[in-house]
Amino acid sequence: MKLGGRMLGYLMVMTCDFTEAERAAVYRAIFERRDVRSQFIPDPIPDDVLNRILLAAHHAPSVGFMQPWDFILIRDREVRSLIRDDFQEANRRAAETYQGQQRTAYEQLKLEGILDSPLNICVTCDRARTLGSGLGRHSAPETDLYSTVCAVQNLWLAARAEGVGVGWVSILDAHRLGEILGVPPRVTPIAYLCVGYVSQFMEAPDLEKKGWCRRESLAGLLHYDGWQGRR
Amino acid sequence: MKLGGRMLGYLMVMTCDFTEAERAAVYRAIFERRDVRSQFIPDPIPDDVLNRILLAAHHAPSVGFMQPWDFILIRDREVRSLIRDDFQEANRRAAETYQGQQRTAYEQLKLEGILDSPLNICVTCDRARTLGSGLGRHSAPETDLYSTVCAVQNLWLAARAEGVGVGWVSILDAHRLGEILGVPPRVTPIAYLCVGYVSQFMEAPDLEKKGWCRRESLAGLLHYDGWQGRR
Repeated sequence: MKLGGRMLGYLMVMTCDFTEAERAAVYRAIFERRDVRSQFIPDPIPDDVLNRILLAAHHAPSVGFMQPWDFILIRDREVRSLIRDDFQEANRRAAETYQGQQRTAYEQLKLEGILDSPLNICVTCDRARTLGSGLGRHSAPETDLYSTVCAVQNLWLAARAEGVGVGWVSILDAHRLGEILGVPPRVTPIAYLCVGYVSQFMEAPDLEKKGWCRRESLAGLLHYDGWQGRR
Repeated sequence: MKLGGRMLGYLMVMTCDFTEAERAAVYRAIFERRDVRSQFIPDPIPDDVLNRILLAAHHAPSVGFMQPWDFILIRDREVRSLIRDDFQEANRRAAETYQGQQRTAYEQLKLEGILDSPLNICVTCDRARTLGSGLGRHSAPETDLYSTVCAVQNLWLAARAEGVGVGWVSILDAHRLGEILGVPPRVTPIAYLCVGYVSQFMEAPDLEKKGWCRRESLAGLLHYDGWQGRR
């Protein structure tokens, strides 16, 4: 997988401002990105599209240029079935924590697309990777995990621009997931992603549409010069 | 801060594929994003630009639609000076862990732009926020931290599209940072960002240019159907 002509082309134009149309496209990806569970179609993702999406992930910021991520691409249906069993067990335990109407609402939500999507990607963080020689991590060792999450978000936005849906499944026992995938103890699974083309991208987040909760106002989340500084 | 006409416009066109030009713009933001330390200029960021960047952050994915983030906008020079003192103390301790040539190389790196940039933003995670009722966090409570990092990466890419540089300073004592900003104990500072227009965006990461370390090959980071599956 190489940096192709177009990628190099991007690097040549760095001194120019983004045009209004380019800015709008970046915001379009950000505002139209969805956490997809229900709209996957089985069409495989061509290699060149997948390569671009993974290269976007690999160009995330990382503390000390550590690049602590790995990408496990999972197409094997048996492996995905084992992970779906892990989800179902974790989800059963989670459902038990809700009562009454909320329990009913929870049980009606579709919270994964592990077998519906043709590709799953587990993004991991190798906490012992020595690249970067620990720069930036002496006072904040957790920043390797955060770097890996930045790679996930790059992947997610690039996928949206390619018309590819992504759903992050967090309802998993991470220890069991690591066992199924044979991940060494020094490596932490960060995100388990269902990836595939979709019949449509929904116009709003599923949990908002289903009334699980609403979007906060941004103004209420802003503070000035300290936590107590409000306007 | 409201969802303006253009933002609503984005939502109306969700069923269309991205054009090739739109895809290229998203990749341009991803590949030309830099962790900025040295090229800040003092020009203030207009409110409408800052609002768009923060709205992009606020549209990050979050576990259970929890939206656990807050944004502390810091322009006050005295507050920033205290945080710069925190950096200098943490950086002195970090430098002591390197020897010889690597120590010399480390001490020549510029690793923050706290006072050079006109605006600092501390992005925090409120771990006790009840929005989302814990959905998705029973088996993975750390996903609120990860959601907040997704917001940071959205902010970073939107800023790049606006021609605004961002530098993440991880060399800080988080406890001292929380004290300076008056952050309550339930709230975790995730990222401390230096934000401002720049004289230029560098064509490659600073740590790569300075020879601290090189970019890994993506192919070496790919696994198939399990950790042991290599090609």
